[in-house]
Amino acid sequence: MESWPPGGSGPAEAGPRLRGLRGADLAASASLLSGAGAGAEAGCSAPAVAAVLPAGGSGERMGVPTPKQFCPILERPLISYTLQALERVSWIKDIVVAVTGENMEAMKCIIQRYQHKGISLVESGVTRHRSIFNGLKALAEDQPNCRLSKPEVVIIHDAVRPFVEEDVLLKVVTAAKEHGAAGAIRPLVSTVISPSVDGCLDHSLERARHRASEMPQAFLFDVIYEAYQQCSDYDLEFGTECLHLALKYCHIKAKLIEGSPDLWKVTYKRDLYAAESIIKERISQQICVVMDAKEDEEHVGHRLEEMLKNELNHVKVTSGRDLQQIILEQCYNFVCVNVMTSDFEETQKLLNMLEESNLSILYPVVVISVQFLDYESVPFGQKMENLMQIREFAKEVKKTNILLYGLLVYYPQDEQKLQESLRQGATIIAALIKERNSGLIGQLLVA
Amino acid sequence: MESWPPGGSGPAEAGPRLRGLRGADLAASASLLSGAGAGAEAGCSAPAVAAVLPAGGSGERMGVPTPKQFCPILERPLISYTLQALERVSWIKDIVVAVTGENMEAMKCIIQRYQHKGISLVESGVTRHRSIFNGLKALAEDQPNCRLSKPEVVIIHDAVRPFVEEDVLLKVVTAAKEHGAAGAIRPLVSTVISPSVDGCLDHSLERARHRASEMPQAFLFDVIYEAYQQCSDYDLEFGTECLHLALKYCHIKAKLIEGSPDLWKVTYKRDLYAAESIIKERISQQICVVMDAKEDEEHVGHRLEEMLKNELNHVKVTSGRDLQQIILEQCYNFVCVNVMTSDFEETQKLLNMLEESNLSILYPVVVISVQFLDYESVPFGQKMENLMQIREFAKEVKKTNILLYGLLVYYPQDEQKLQESLRQGATIIAALIKERNSGLIGQLLVA
Repeated sequence: MESWPPGGSGPAEAGPRLRGLRGADLAASASLLSGAGAGAEAGCSAPAVAAVLPAGGSGERMGVPTPKQFCPILERPLISYTLQALERVSWIKDIVVAVTGENMEAMKCIIQRYQHKGISLVESGVTRHRSIFNGLKALAEDQPNCRLSKPEVVIIHDAVRPFVEEDVLLKVVTAAKEHGAAGAIRPLVSTVISPSVDGCLDHSLERARHRASEMPQAFLFDVIYEAYQQCSDYDLEFGTECLHLALKYCHIKAKLIEGSPDLWKVTYKRDLYAAESIIKERISQQICVVMDAKEDEEHVGHRLEEMLKNELNHVKVTSGRDLQQIILEQCYNFVCVNVMTSDFEETQKLLNMLEESNLSILYPVVVISVQFLDYESVPFGQKMENLMQIREFAKEVKKTNILLYGLLVYYPQDEQKLQESLRQGATIIAALIKERNSGLIGQLLVA
Repeated sequence: MESWPPGGSGPAEAGPRLRGLRGADLAASASLLSGAGAGAEAGCSAPAVAAVLPAGGSGERMGVPTPKQFCPILERPLISYTLQALERVSWIKDIVVAVTGENMEAMKCIIQRYQHKGISLVESGVTRHRSIFNGLKALAEDQPNCRLSKPEVVIIHDAVRPFVEEDVLLKVVTAAKEHGAAGAIRPLVSTVISPSVDGCLDHSLERARHRASEMPQAFLFDVIYEAYQQCSDYDLEFGTECLHLALKYCHIKAKLIEGSPDLWKVTYKRDLYAAESIIKERISQQICVVMDAKEDEEHVGHRLEEMLKNELNHVKVTSGRDLQQIILEQCYNFVCVNVMTSDFEETQKLLNMLEESNLSILYPVVVISVQFLDYESVPFGQKMENLMQIREFAKEVKKTNILLYGLLVYYPQDEQKLQESLRQGATIIAALIKERNSGLIGQLLVA
């Protein structure tokens, strides 16, 4: 068993969050986890909760050569999103990932590159159950050189379910403490049928009486470890359901928890598309408008900000006055209005700040550098020529996962025409943020 | 029951196809449909095969107010894609769609706008089974003013499964002729469990022994109509499975046909995202390069064509010599290189031809108008200023669902730099075609 990063032993640090958590509610509920619960915060060294992630699958259903957990979404492997979802939960102390020997090095690179904390790697087995068993063994063995220790409750989750939320994790853990085992379920989307040997319908199951068993699941560690130790080779080889093992070998009837649709498993290529769209949507919820204008001329930047507020529903438009705070809150979209300063001074300041913040480690950050131009006072072509240097900036910052685009907004005297160009500007900004297309970086768009 | 368009009675015309069908194979197999099979082609007036599409659902699982079958994908309602998939199959004579009274007018508009043929509308019932029954009744009744007549085999499909292919339709129809009933199945993605009344696990089902029942299904008309006529109110109200009705009321054991992953049902919002990505991917498989250059100067256009071939894997790059033929073959992406002629002459010719062809009725067509520029001979800014008129063209052709973008490719003397700008051009072209973003139309991008 290998621990990574070497010597790392701190509590799981919350990585950037996909969504704001209802912090206070969850903290209150988390305190329901009695005993050694909420370990790190309570100053208690024994972790109550660990998680095991089998990630040894080959992803044959995906129809692509890369195992699905390593398929990239916005250039980052799927499994990194799942790790991020787990490590932001402060009361999960250890995360054990089971990967094939072949993928061990790749997995270490992922952990290092995306700065995941508190992850231990074990070698996966040839089946899902064997991989989980390996993960449990790593937690059970109190070895001197191993930073892991036996948890009271263990969560079992899939590497390919990146959208798991803290509330469902808490629900299954709480239920597992009470019942010994618990798992998330969902209504069936299709009717389930049983075929006869000749490939005809034998019978169909009543849809309302059955559920799809999803992940996460949680168990009292002693229950599930006992079940795996007693488990037959046949079950280890062909079984698919941990709840079934707890029932069969420990007579524990798992509590079933209704989960949200987000718990779905990335199985087919279409699921990768869906995951990418969901992630893009989530990181496009907020735009921060940064401007250099302070007094007289702040007019036009604010007008663009107003237009963004009016035109882009479901997007929160924030002023970039306290930029450090906004970066901390994980806003991934910036519109930088340059009015007072020379062409790119303000943009350059913003880019420097973003690069220092490491904000773009997990998601591509969009920066749109806006210039206003009154065609009648400055020749259009000349201005554009100056602004084309944005291409070089864009190439440079792309290396740190920042997507820089230019936007030239026509600024006529005529009020109605100005409204029109501001609206067009908002449309272009929305399009760039939504798509996050790296093929168009460094372009100077015109509104 | 309403027939739409009024008086329409021709055979289903093949709409634009998402994928090339393996025509010869399917024609050969279709001839296996004996009797009145392949009606229209065989000069036989009695249709052998009809389809019923229940589309009365409310889409509550989608979490959006619009019923999912009417949710737009690339601005076209999902159900139109499903109709297109069915109507391109020449041997399906009639398609009966069951919609709520409330959505009847909207459905008529969809049929008219997207030029669907051979569709009849009936009012849906309050449950899926009642809607299907209404569709079957419309086919059973030989009314004087009704263009429908009773088919030998009826396909039942879902309005929210747009990716059904001709081969699986043929398989279920052929099997239904032999067995009386047939349906597509898929392996289970999750283990299915049965909860006890207290919300705990009662037992889990062995995943390998069960299947998900999907659509399409097909039945001898007399079998399924008989089943619905005998069906209990309880089954009509709470049942979900047509194969079950054929078994219960007519003792017909349906033949089960392994379907492809494409048969999945658009159920959640994420499925809409997935469907949009799949459709975008399918219509981005081919790029046609049109150019005005004939002799001496054809050089640079051809070099861009070569670069596209090298850089864009999985995309077929075609020369636009026989443009009418390429439009007929449903290529949705055009790169128009203007070298000899004045700025937009060639592009204008292409746009006119596209508008006349109606190619963009079903999918947005991307046109990228390419200009080459040697910065050292023509001032960059001045050239751009001329080319900005593309914004007006773009606004105009957007009305007919054509997305026009401009691309200015730097054409230096230096061979290595030229290679670099051609490669950059190919990247931008790929990005525009992939995203089909209407927010960026009329922009002049620079490579």
